[in-house]
Amino acid sequence: MRLRNVKNMDEIFTQATHYVEDAKKYCGKVETLFPKKQPLHIEIGMGKGDFIIQMAQLHPEINFIGIEKFDKVLARALPKIPDALSNLKIYKLDAREIASYFQKEVDKIYLNFSDPWPKARQAKHRLTSPFFLEQYDQIFKGDAVIEMKTDNVALFLYSLEILSQHGYSFSNLSLDYHKLMDLPKVMSEYEKKFTEKGIPICYVTATSKKKRGG
Amino acid sequence: MRLRNVKNMDEIFTQATHYVEDAKKYCGKVETLFPKKQPLHIEIGMGKGDFIIQMAQLHPEINFIGIEKFDKVLARALPKIPDALSNLKIYKLDAREIASYFQKEVDKIYLNFSDPWPKARQAKHRLTSPFFLEQYDQIFKGDAVIEMKTDNVALFLYSLEILSQHGYSFSNLSLDYHKLMDLPKVMSEYEKKFTEKGIPICYVTATSKKKRGG
Repeated sequence: MRLRNVKNMDEIFTQATHYVEDAKKYCGKVETLFPKKQPLHIEIGMGKGDFIIQMAQLHPEINFIGIEKFDKVLARALPKIPDALSNLKIYKLDAREIASYFQKEVDKIYLNFSDPWPKARQAKHRLTSPFFLEQYDQIFKGDAVIEMKTDNVALFLYSLEILSQHGYSFSNLSLDYHKLMDLPKVMSEYEKKFTEKGIPICYVTATSKKKRGG
Repeated sequence: MRLRNVKNMDEIFTQATHYVEDAKKYCGKVETLFPKKQPLHIEIGMGKGDFIIQMAQLHPEINFIGIEKFDKVLARALPKIPDALSNLKIYKLDAREIASYFQKEVDKIYLNFSDPWPKARQAKHRLTSPFFLEQYDQIFKGDAVIEMKTDNVALFLYSLEILSQHGYSFSNLSLDYHKLMDLPKVMSEYEKKFTEKGIPICYVTATSKKKRGG
């Protein structure tokens, strides 16, 4: 995501009540960050936050954590979050280290318009690569559930292969989910842009019941 | 498949050296039909036979059985088979009864351009429905391998869902395999027609390592 520099970045972070500093120290006790003990959904690569903010507003019965690795992107997202929204927190971290931040406490992961890393030699960077699926194994509480949306068909097919090889099964599988499915349409910034241009969005719910490693 | 009536149909069947009458009696000893004991691949819904005949010619190291339920279709396929082709046999049967014809002796199933049965209430007739996958469980010798080709995206997505829910994982997944993959292009009649019209062909190799029921 290309972004202009953000002024007063330090100020934005210190004033942002939803931003969690030293998030690693909540590993294994993430629920203490929220007023209610309820299911935890996370979005890896939240970008400017439109999706996760809307989801948190629509689903007060779920706790959400939005994850993003770039300061400049977070600085755009944080000021948008309504102060009163108590079921949303924001972490800054590199997804490669996600297993240091959560310990068998995540119920669902959202992957929206993740970077496709189109070259074969970059495949390990894709958020559905075997490396990342192994990290996710360590953070899911029970059954693993990943909801994925992308406009990139190559990334989508790659993800279906790797997910299936890792024991995931599929439902709501679509190559054009706005047309085909009666699903809640909570859209990210990318999704709005693509949808306005008539670019179809691939969608899948991937579930794995297999036992998680220690 | 709509076909004109075939003249001399009885004669075609009695003269066809590759056609196996009373095929059920070979259940559990299919290898006795072939000169060599080697892997067994079957095509369910062989249509006019172009795919399976070419495959048998290209792969003398594999035994093939082509399966079709309609007399009129078989009567078109049988005369095309070269007499000397000893690694190909043809069965007439309804796929719903396939588990009465094979007993843990099949290594791979080909599903080429199967009837999509597009209406939701017809889903059970699709050759990748849960009912059929249970039948296939009974006929695979070891790991289950299904190679599927279709021009019908809805059937393809349905199949990926059901196959994944049945424990299959995917490789060579493509929505346009002629463009994307360096695979042997042994084409069925349908495939030639679609490919000439520029219609993309979906492709997947689905594999399941799970143990088969008794």
